[in-house]
Amino acid sequence: MNVSTSLKVRLPAFVLVSEVVMIVLYAVFVTYDDNANAKLQNNETKPMENSIYQDYPYFVDVQLMIFIGFGCLLAFFRFYGFSGMVFNFLTATFAIQWAILIQGFFQFYYDGQIHLGVINLLNAEFACAVVLISFGAVIGKTSPVQLLVMALLEIPVFAVTEWAVLKYIRINDAGGTILIHLFACYFGLGVTFVLYRPSLNNGHSREITSYHSDILSVMGTLFLWVFWPSFNSALTFKGDDQHRAILHTFLGLSSSTLTAFALTAMFNKRGKLTMADIQNVTLAGGVTVGASVDMMISPVAAYALGIMGCTACFFGYKYMTPFMARHMRIQDQCGIHNLHGLTGLISSTAGICAILLATEETYGPSMYQIFSHRAPPEGDQKLLELQRLIPGLKPGLGRTAQEQALYQVAAIFSTIAAAAVGGLLTGWVMKLPFLASPSDMDCFDDELFFDMPSDFERLKRFNMHHILCLVYLIITTLNILCF
Amino acid sequence: MNVSTSLKVRLPAFVLVSEVVMIVLYAVFVTYDDNANAKLQNNETKPMENSIYQDYPYFVDVQLMIFIGFGCLLAFFRFYGFSGMVFNFLTATFAIQWAILIQGFFQFYYDGQIHLGVINLLNAEFACAVVLISFGAVIGKTSPVQLLVMALLEIPVFAVTEWAVLKYIRINDAGGTILIHLFACYFGLGVTFVLYRPSLNNGHSREITSYHSDILSVMGTLFLWVFWPSFNSALTFKGDDQHRAILHTFLGLSSSTLTAFALTAMFNKRGKLTMADIQNVTLAGGVTVGASVDMMISPVAAYALGIMGCTACFFGYKYMTPFMARHMRIQDQCGIHNLHGLTGLISSTAGICAILLATEETYGPSMYQIFSHRAPPEGDQKLLELQRLIPGLKPGLGRTAQEQALYQVAAIFSTIAAAAVGGLLTGWVMKLPFLASPSDMDCFDDELFFDMPSDFERLKRFNMHHILCLVYLIITTLNILCF
Amino acid sequence: MNVSTSLKVRLPAFVLVSEVVMIVLYAVFVTYDDNANAKLQNNETKPMENSIYQDYPYFVDVQLMIFIGFGCLLAFFRFYGFSGMVFNFLTATFAIQWAILIQGFFQFYYDGQIHLGVINLLNAEFACAVVLISFGAVIGKTSPVQLLVMALLEIPVFAVTEWAVLKYIRINDAGGTILIHLFACYFGLGVTFVLYRPSLNNGHSREITSYHSDILSVMGTLFLWVFWPSFNSALTFKGDDQHRAILHTFLGLSSSTLTAFALTAMFNKRGKLTMADIQNVTLAGGVTVGASVDMMISPVAAYALGIMGCTACFFGYKYMTPFMARHMRIQDQCGIHNLHGLTGLISSTAGICAILLATEETYGPSMYQIFSHRAPPEGDQKLLELQRLIPGLKPGLGRTAQEQALYQVAAIFSTIAAAAVGGLLTGWVMKLPFLASPSDMDCFDDELFFDMPSDFERLKRFNMHHILCLVYLIITTLNILCF
Repeated sequence: MNVSTSLKVRLPAFVLVSEVVMIVLYAVFVTYDDNANAKLQNNETKPMENSIYQDYPYFVDVQLMIFIGFGCLLAFFRFYGFSGMVFNFLTATFAIQWAILIQGFFQFYYDGQIHLGVINLLNAEFACAVVLISFGAVIGKTSPVQLLVMALLEIPVFAVTEWAVLKYIRINDAGGTILIHLFACYFGLGVTFVLYRPSLNNGHSREITSYHSDILSVMGTLFLWVFWPSFNSALTFKGDDQHRAILHTFLGLSSSTLTAFALTAMFNKRGKLTMADIQNVTLAGGVTVGASVDMMISPVAAYALGIMGCTACFFGYKYMTPFMARHMRIQDQCGIHNLHGLTGLISSTAGICAILLATEETYGPSMYQIFSHRAPPEGDQKLLELQRLIPGLKPGLGRTAQEQALYQVAAIFSTIAAAAVGGLLTGWVMKLPFLASPSDMDCFDDELFFDMPSDFERLKRFNMHHILCLVYLIITTLNILCF
Repeated sequence: MNVSTSLKVRLPAFVLVSEVVMIVLYAVFVTYDDNANAKLQNNETKPMENSIYQDYPYFVDVQLMIFIGFGCLLAFFRFYGFSGMVFNFLTATFAIQWAILIQGFFQFYYDGQIHLGVINLLNAEFACAVVLISFGAVIGKTSPVQLLVMALLEIPVFAVTEWAVLKYIRINDAGGTILIHLFACYFGLGVTFVLYRPSLNNGHSREITSYHSDILSVMGTLFLWVFWPSFNSALTFKGDDQHRAILHTFLGLSSSTLTAFALTAMFNKRGKLTMADIQNVTLAGGVTVGASVDMMISPVAAYALGIMGCTACFFGYKYMTPFMARHMRIQDQCGIHNLHGLTGLISSTAGICAILLATEETYGPSMYQIFSHRAPPEGDQKLLELQRLIPGLKPGLGRTAQEQALYQVAAIFSTIAAAAVGGLLTGWVMKLPFLASPSDMDCFDDELFFDMPSDFERLKRFNMHHILCLVYLIITTLNILCF
Repeated sequence: MNVSTSLKVRLPAFVLVSEVVMIVLYAVFVTYDDNANAKLQNNETKPMENSIYQDYPYFVDVQLMIFIGFGCLLAFFRFYGFSGMVFNFLTATFAIQWAILIQGFFQFYYDGQIHLGVINLLNAEFACAVVLISFGAVIGKTSPVQLLVMALLEIPVFAVTEWAVLKYIRINDAGGTILIHLFACYFGLGVTFVLYRPSLNNGHSREITSYHSDILSVMGTLFLWVFWPSFNSALTFKGDDQHRAILHTFLGLSSSTLTAFALTAMFNKRGKLTMADIQNVTLAGGVTVGASVDMMISPVAAYALGIMGCTACFFGYKYMTPFMARHMRIQDQCGIHNLHGLTGLISSTAGICAILLATEETYGPSMYQIFSHRAPPEGDQKLLELQRLIPGLKPGLGRTAQEQALYQVAAIFSTIAAAAVGGLLTGWVMKLPFLASPSDMDCFDDELFFDMPSDFERLKRFNMHHILCLVYLIITTLNILCF
């Protein structure tokens, strides 16, 4: 046992310090938002119109994705099931707590306080999803302390990027393609670039799945699949926008699933299905529809996007991940560049096309709600006309479609840049010596960080045991034959 | 390895052709319904009154049943867990896509377009459930290509039957007992009759469960159990009708679960519990309350129906399934005739009784909403009176209870007939040579269609290994004793 | 095989008798409540305002906790997975059915009938949770018949206690800390005190987990974790109260999870993580925030409560459970005294503090809604004033904060007393000879009550097989060396 990976001091120290900090910050800065404050409940407030009834169902769905979906999906290694599921649990819990504070300062801060409602939790879950996606790049090669450090650093970088993009560049990104998937992907690649382990490029004997871990992982995929429409629609406008987001996500996932089955059989040497593809590539459609998920792109476009995203993702796994590991020092363990990066780029492009093609003819006046930055600015005559049609329409920036498209491009590049730089720096911090990083040999092994049940050793030794038995079988036979 | 079961060409060919067809059909025919169309959002539309907020929660619940519930339940074979879960995923995805189109043409087609909203997805999931129930009859003996062909053919037969029954016979069937369970059951039996494999009647060495597969399968049962009230109430009228549907389904499931435990212990030789019963028979009550699920049958009737359905289902498993396999060439792998056929017949009968017993005294004027075909026809004086009590009550056909009961009987027989004929023909198509049908020997084996993790071979050989060890133990002992 | 544990007669007899009794009672006493009664639907009833749409989402969430969450969590023993999951299924089903009747008589009985709606089911699930928590104390050492007997007796004791406390003592306990967690804990301890098995104090060879059972159990934990906010908020007032309940539960769980990770690593000899802690101690925060979950305690208080509850729970597992087993004849199998008892006491104390600190300044007039017994009594001038601010405010008892606090204390002690006495008597009944109680040797073994798949025997013998192989390896080697 390598003493330097003991969590006895490191993990408690990190947790206890961060808990003290959080208690202070929560005590000083966090209060209830209007919908959770008893004092603001008066005879004009109808309880059933509390914002919670709009937000909570989506919050629960995303919770299931984060804790069950990701948890099971990441438990795909044969000897790393505890770690996959439990480090996900730990990292997610910490990331959400931390994001409530950090995002709170950027998005829910006024009157000197962060105002807390279920909507903050929902936003924090998205920030948490960002961390968990990045986690996918380095799973099996990091200690829980390193993962907590990653969450500690990634959340602020993400929150700042999100705030800067939403406040200054102002984009359309209902499904979070740019801010969640692209950011998470390039941040994770940055981290794994720094944590490069040359000796793992030739594979590791424990980098395999088992019959049960594959089934568990598919269950995770199915949970993600089922709730993805909730994920993509949680933060859209209510009403028809949210309705379309659900339809598009379902169609995109559906066509990408079919396509994944076709491709996995087609490119398998013996015409069989590969579980890794079914666990990952099927989900590509959910990301690919993201950037245009609430727009009037037509159902067939969502269907086609699912196919395109899935195809890019599949070939990414086949060719790009090995290429990046061999030639670019980027070991992308779960292939997040395929599932979130390539699909995210396609999705962003599709979003730009949808923005360029949007007309009042298709959308009616509500075009200026969905593309809110295209709404006429305060004082414009057109705004008053529109406000007669849609009471409460907020003034925008009067951007043209082309201008909005350019801002989208700017957002894509700045998000990727911020993520990559943040990831590189974070990776550098994660490399600091006292963070219990596992040695190359100890990677992909639950035993390093867990007290294991007694059958684990035997699961690991089964192979050897089997071979030993065969050897002695032969020896015995020879032995008998000799006499 | 049998070359003829390679999916390398067959599966991609099927998928790619169907995707091209779907893209064309979606492009030409599918548009948004009013609740998903941005243009129809105006200053009179309140976003929170969008139909999505009524439909989406039920859609998600049914999604969980389809993908997680069925997926886990069907993973009950020891060496067929990948196939059970993954073929379910593939078939369900394809079936829903296809049903959106086919059902769309029959139920949501106007102005030359299929109008798509979450309600279509919900309906398509029910069509998908039909396919998955039928899948239960032939699980382990079919290739994924055959399953896709089955879905391809079953969906249109189902959609036509559904449309004909709802439009011309006009019945009460809120829980889908007749149209979903009876149809799916007799279609599946038709298919398996054609796919009869005599050599499997004596059992197959891999037709067994394992400790882990049984636990996984119970998890599937529990997911189906928990969400069954949503399934049975998803398409009822909103309000008290939906409320009753939930109550009845819960009570029926609850009493059938208790009864299943009693029967499994009572008829086990050593007084133990049998997992197969707990996985299947417990669910019988959910089907049995289906046809009368929204009616005022009283809670105790739902409770009693659960017991009756469970009892029929249990003895069906015990006596009827083996009988049908031996004497009628019907190999019903999961016993769908017990869980969906027998219970469906009891349920239909109960529905007819409930229709005959329905009086205005019990229901008040809303009787003419639930039994909408009994409402007075257009122009009738009574209709105007009723419309004063229930604004918006639609004119009906003025049927008496007895007439409605007769129509129910007609619907039952025509549904069964359509299903059986459709199943036979579909089975005949599925027997075509190029569909990668597994040989008798390769049934119930994941290895045929999947790249397997390295421990699978050992799980399979464990038995042999164990015996070998014992043999060599004896030989060695003898060997030693000899000297 | 021990004949006296056969379920062949005992289980069916129990079930069939109870089903007959239930059918009679349901037939005579149970009718629909107003929201489920078609007759009471008239032109004034808006279907979407049916109570079902407020209750059903929480009902489904709690269902998932009961059947999936508890089911998986209790499947943590290596050779007791079937029993943990399936006995939970059986006991829960029976308990809910029974609680609908018994609670119905106390809470939903008027006009000579129990009025049934989804709200009854939701209440019955809470009663069921009580039974399942108590089950945790005796898991592995009880037959399904004993568990049914426990449910049969615990439900009425619980329902009477609940009714007496709510009607006569009148307390604030939104999350059910006192009535659910404390009751369930001390009832379970009472039962296990009577069922004390001295020979099991030294451990049992099958009282271990396996790699897969630990993963399954963590999944159960995650389901409980995700839906705990729904559990704690299901029966609060709608609106801001429910909103706070969700926020506090999430924060409490979140901080207790982090703390659990810190403590498990800190107190592990080799600085590793212990799965049992992750499965149980992480959940402590959910209980600890319970008694004050809907109050204006501030977010940071919920965070701190989570840390405190988790710490108490952790040290309870470490020191108190072994102490109680050795010196107090209390074998608390799952450590319910730590997860529900200690946390419950902290939570109750916190609730009392929150009551004492509540002022109109913090809550505004809605203080008299949350602390309804502090509202002025009928006829008081202050009541009329308040009713102008909050129309529909119900008259209370005019209690001061101090008085309410004393009543809380009274409720805590009387609940614990009733639970302990009820548990002792129930344990005594469960000891009756014909209830199929397993012998000490047969504890923690699925084989006693289930027909097992063929690999189970091998999972159990694997250890022996492994040792045998090693022995023969040595013998063979020696044998060869000798010649």
